[in-house]
Amino acid sequence: MDMIVVMKSTAAPSDADRVVERIGELGLTPNVSQGELRTMIGAAGKKSPAIVQQLEQLSGVDRVIAVTQPYKMASREFHEADTILDIKGIRVGGPHVNVIAGPCAIESRDMLFEIGRLVKDAGASILRGGAFKPRSSPYSYQGMGRRGLELLQEAGQELGMPTITEVTDPRDVEVVAEYADIFQVGARNMQNFSLLLEVGKTDKPVFIKRGLAASITEWLMSAEYVLSQGNHRVILCERGMRTFNEEVRFTLDVSAVPVVQERSHLPVFVDPSHAAGKRDLVPPLAIAAVAAGASGLIIEVHSCPEKAMCDGPQAVLPARFTKLMEQLKQVAEIVDHRVTQWGDAPSTPRRAESGGWMS
Amino acid sequence: MDMIVVMKSTAAPSDADRVVERIGELGLTPNVSQGELRTMIGAAGKKSPAIVQQLEQLSGVDRVIAVTQPYKMASREFHEADTILDIKGIRVGGPHVNVIAGPCAIESRDMLFEIGRLVKDAGASILRGGAFKPRSSPYSYQGMGRRGLELLQEAGQELGMPTITEVTDPRDVEVVAEYADIFQVGARNMQNFSLLLEVGKTDKPVFIKRGLAASITEWLMSAEYVLSQGNHRVILCERGMRTFNEEVRFTLDVSAVPVVQERSHLPVFVDPSHAAGKRDLVPPLAIAAVAAGASGLIIEVHSCPEKAMCDGPQAVLPARFTKLMEQLKQVAEIVDHRVTQWGDAPSTPRRAESGGWMS
Amino acid sequence: MDMIVVMKSTAAPSDADRVVERIGELGLTPNVSQGELRTMIGAAGKKSPAIVQQLEQLSGVDRVIAVTQPYKMASREFHEADTILDIKGIRVGGPHVNVIAGPCAIESRDMLFEIGRLVKDAGASILRGGAFKPRSSPYSYQGMGRRGLELLQEAGQELGMPTITEVTDPRDVEVVAEYADIFQVGARNMQNFSLLLEVGKTDKPVFIKRGLAASITEWLMSAEYVLSQGNHRVILCERGMRTFNEEVRFTLDVSAVPVVQERSHLPVFVDPSHAAGKRDLVPPLAIAAVAAGASGLIIEVHSCPEKAMCDGPQAVLPARFTKLMEQLKQVAEIVDHRVTQWGDAPSTPRRAESGGWMS
Amino acid sequence: MDMIVVMKSTAAPSDADRVVERIGELGLTPNVSQGELRTMIGAAGKKSPAIVQQLEQLSGVDRVIAVTQPYKMASREFHEADTILDIKGIRVGGPHVNVIAGPCAIESRDMLFEIGRLVKDAGASILRGGAFKPRSSPYSYQGMGRRGLELLQEAGQELGMPTITEVTDPRDVEVVAEYADIFQVGARNMQNFSLLLEVGKTDKPVFIKRGLAASITEWLMSAEYVLSQGNHRVILCERGMRTFNEEVRFTLDVSAVPVVQERSHLPVFVDPSHAAGKRDLVPPLAIAAVAAGASGLIIEVHSCPEKAMCDGPQAVLPARFTKLMEQLKQVAEIVDHRVTQWGDAPSTPRRAESGGWMS
Repeated sequence: MDMIVVMKSTAAPSDADRVVERIGELGLTPNVSQGELRTMIGAAGKKSPAIVQQLEQLSGVDRVIAVTQPYKMASREFHEADTILDIKGIRVGGPHVNVIAGPCAIESRDMLFEIGRLVKDAGASILRGGAFKPRSSPYSYQGMGRRGLELLQEAGQELGMPTITEVTDPRDVEVVAEYADIFQVGARNMQNFSLLLEVGKTDKPVFIKRGLAASITEWLMSAEYVLSQGNHRVILCERGMRTFNEEVRFTLDVSAVPVVQERSHLPVFVDPSHAAGKRDLVPPLAIAAVAAGASGLIIEVHSCPEKAMCDGPQAVLPARFTKLMEQLKQVAEIVDHRVTQWGDAPSTPRRAESGGWMS
Repeated sequence: MDMIVVMKSTAAPSDADRVVERIGELGLTPNVSQGELRTMIGAAGKKSPAIVQQLEQLSGVDRVIAVTQPYKMASREFHEADTILDIKGIRVGGPHVNVIAGPCAIESRDMLFEIGRLVKDAGASILRGGAFKPRSSPYSYQGMGRRGLELLQEAGQELGMPTITEVTDPRDVEVVAEYADIFQVGARNMQNFSLLLEVGKTDKPVFIKRGLAASITEWLMSAEYVLSQGNHRVILCERGMRTFNEEVRFTLDVSAVPVVQERSHLPVFVDPSHAAGKRDLVPPLAIAAVAAGASGLIIEVHSCPEKAMCDGPQAVLPARFTKLMEQLKQVAEIVDHRVTQWGDAPSTPRRAESGGWMS
Repeated sequence: MDMIVVMKSTAAPSDADRVVERIGELGLTPNVSQGELRTMIGAAGKKSPAIVQQLEQLSGVDRVIAVTQPYKMASREFHEADTILDIKGIRVGGPHVNVIAGPCAIESRDMLFEIGRLVKDAGASILRGGAFKPRSSPYSYQGMGRRGLELLQEAGQELGMPTITEVTDPRDVEVVAEYADIFQVGARNMQNFSLLLEVGKTDKPVFIKRGLAASITEWLMSAEYVLSQGNHRVILCERGMRTFNEEVRFTLDVSAVPVVQERSHLPVFVDPSHAAGKRDLVPPLAIAAVAAGASGLIIEVHSCPEKAMCDGPQAVLPARFTKLMEQLKQVAEIVDHRVTQWGDAPSTPRRAESGGWMS
Repeated sequence: MDMIVVMKSTAAPSDADRVVERIGELGLTPNVSQGELRTMIGAAGKKSPAIVQQLEQLSGVDRVIAVTQPYKMASREFHEADTILDIKGIRVGGPHVNVIAGPCAIESRDMLFEIGRLVKDAGASILRGGAFKPRSSPYSYQGMGRRGLELLQEAGQELGMPTITEVTDPRDVEVVAEYADIFQVGARNMQNFSLLLEVGKTDKPVFIKRGLAASITEWLMSAEYVLSQGNHRVILCERGMRTFNEEVRFTLDVSAVPVVQERSHLPVFVDPSHAAGKRDLVPPLAIAAVAAGASGLIIEVHSCPEKAMCDGPQAVLPARFTKLMEQLKQVAEIVDHRVTQWGDAPSTPRRAESGGWMS
């Protein structure tokens, strides 16, 4: 890790000497640059993040600036091409725009199949549905559990759609892997490192939502947790930040899309539903996200949201979803992307994923 | 103003009686609703915001919720149709998408004319240029002042474009009005009430940027300041919030576009340049803003940003701007809007502004 | 749950009728209050949070305001007296101020015993030390694990101090319970509901740090998760919010202390070390927290922070810690609190905890 | 200004050469440090902030880090000792703790004199009162204007207290200077640069509140605006940040006190009233602020807050204020500070201000 030690303007020359000496002891190469007011000392060498904190405490040091990003496998510095995943024949990432849709929670077989059919017909390529719902109140509906997973699998098979569902507990990773095609790690679990390590040991794609106050770097470090375990199939999803703005549930950070794309090769999706918290806001945010270059969306759709067990107010109604899909197709083309269409999937033998970390 | 007084669960019945009595004394009509745990008392009547604070202090009161919005003339509740302004023959607001472009600061005649010509050719309809620059450092370039205004006026006339420039001091309102067509009130002056009152007394359009930590309500209250003085020609502009996200200068709140459009009839623009702080981020944010339904953009363009006196890194280069305008035209259509084209301006006699507050 | 439905000013009378009807169907008692501009409809009855979302979606409804707090067992509305825990004879909560101190991570037996002795001599009453370290980088030091727990138990026994350590995985709850006296749930796990449920099933005190962007209500809901499982021994700890302020690691929300004390009967502690991120800032924040009425602090102390495996820069040095304890004792008295002294512990038979939820 | 240019890992060697060349052209001295992955180039020389933006745009540059603070006269780097002002014989800054108190707005002669007498008796040393009130609504009470200033002056003279009042418009600076002893620049005007320049041309102390989303650096830059005009008598005041926390009006950033004290020699005060928004929270925040080392407080006190024209809910009642002053005296001593007492003022001839910029 390359770093720069900035000395205080009041530091004694001997302070700088001691820093140079210590950099050497740590096996890094020091380089002194004498400023008008402050001495700056570069330190070049292999990564070791604890060193930053050690140098920071030396006498006369003002601050230590780490110049290298703390993530490696998630970084575009080491992997220039976009990662494009193949999930049951659907290509995810780069210019391929995929819309994940379905109900917030799986409530019944009929409801799930009805909504699944509907979103597929409108153009969604991946089916979502929650079986384990993380709720901020212990008194709220917590999901159907394993029975929900079974229904999701069945619906996915019947519709020919890959499925995604949330996993919240490392002890559930195995059972979720049995039924679903993609793990969703929710915003509140973005730094649940036990869970990240556990999904990192599987070979299923992991869809990591950004924590509601996570920096871009922390988010990429969470991806790094999964990647470092050998699972290179990570998708990132922006879902809104917690800010002072009380008009929306969360403030969608649309700039996260191009910022992450510059920093990382991983696909970036957007969740307009949780950001908005109100269905009328979902279409404008969804279109804006694809316009900003997102590789996909995850949207909650419900045919009878007044009776939904959770988050009804943010569920888009079927007719609006169908119109939205048409708009998304057009917007994607303007930014040289393309919404995945049924029939796009490659025939047997499946093409290997391109651009994956190991490839 | 209608409001609701929520009593504490521990309040004595006599506390509620006193609140009811006081509501009556204040000339409002009380209505008591007995909850499971708490008493709720509605109070209906004419506006008087100080009453909320007075009721809040009565014994046993938990909180007072104002049900009516504190703004009136800016609210869609009282003015349903979109306000559409006519600025020198250009229609601004509603489905008309106008792109304001030009340099950050006016630095020289040649530079201003060159950039002005260039943005006009690409499709911008209004010319921007700063003569008085509010800078966070007293040691930074502060603008050309009156000489800049003269150049801006000259460029506007030659190119046939309306012009916009920032005003930062109530004492400058008169001189700015003499030369420019639209007043820009910057984010740092959104609650400079002296300035708002002064521009409110003119008949020139006022372009109010959202403060970097302003709520939507505070922003609309600043518009109300101008409207309340008799100037009904207000344009709002989202330009990014200050958040914990350090990757961008400011976090563009794209959801502000549909949220404000629901609450107010005034046109909503977006400034992607100041939000991004980096030119590569400007096009995705610009396209996203129009996709979300904005009625316009304000973009900094520079033909030689390395030599710009201010904010060079966020200035878009000419070629990218031209391509961006093409993309914006297509995106606007997908959301049933239309980018103003040269030749759109109505011929004499000019149509009156439609949808203005008084009309 | 009592709530108020606020209608839009544009709602039809039949919309309000439908809301009244629906409130009745849901088994609540409606009460209509006709405002100047808007109709407000109270709804009183038993709790059911999903109803808010259902009513929100009815035609003509502007918003639904829940008047009752969503937490119950954590609320002072249902439990007026301060909860005072007895942890191995030490009284925690209310006017008793306890200082938890020790190293960030347990690195070796010698280091732990040396620091433990030192903080006890200075006046700390509970020993901290991390065995499982949640680190944002997979490449950072992750803690000693079970060996660390053994050392912590041994040190606690030898020094006669209760111990606290972080648990990050529901699968570790059992082993941590075996060795430590208090579970610490870190800020990043505040909404790890699986973990909260698991510690809620034990009878050990749970020390819940506030999430870095958690509202006070969400924080109390996390306490509610533990309380709802039958474990009434919860301590809350403010540790700084993520804000735009880049000068500190996190912004300590000192107002959280009196705010939570008004809302809840649970003890409120403060962690100045993680908020500050720099040792020089720890003493002023620590004194401020006790001045604001906190029932305790958790502070990282290290005798050789330059060699600490984690967070060395924020560790207070022994001499400063000793002086700080003296200052804290004096400040506590000014606000009618008292720092626990060795010798304060009640002799056998131990007094029962007073003010606990069940008492 | 010393700075460091960090190259992208993908930059060509010729990119670095060009940066070195450009640094030389700009009259700075370059120094190249070759890291493991990235080249870092130091640039030492005289200040010129625009250079950062110019270098940032060169090919292959990742970012430019300014190592020197952008403020100079406000910085402790250039002025080590605490600035201590003499305001009508009262010493302000460093270990001297002064409490400014009085009503939010001046509403009548009787009220002002009654509250003034009361806060003086309790131990306040400076009298506050608003004559020009900046209100977010054009429909709210805007203050008494010049008549309020006259009353304030009269009260100050009769009580023998220096006075402070807010100025919001550069055109009012002259009249305010005529009547009051200290200018208050409110949070919403912290970056009203016209106003800052105007008060900078006077010789009266300027009390600058931190903007509600201002960084510490921006705040010190606003002080620099005043200092750069020749007025060295600046006092800083933290008054709460806008954050996601909805429980308080603003989140008091108590860490700002020690952080600014490290960076600057100027006195730092705290306003607990506006941060809290509720009178019950004012005492704990006030005590915490002095405990954290603040050189003073500004507190709103009202004898009949139910009838206050503005901000009644946050006004402290007389009896609580008297008790608070006693607590503050004790807390100040614990951190080696001292609350100014009546009788502290030096007798004739007045001692010169010590530590001022010019001394």
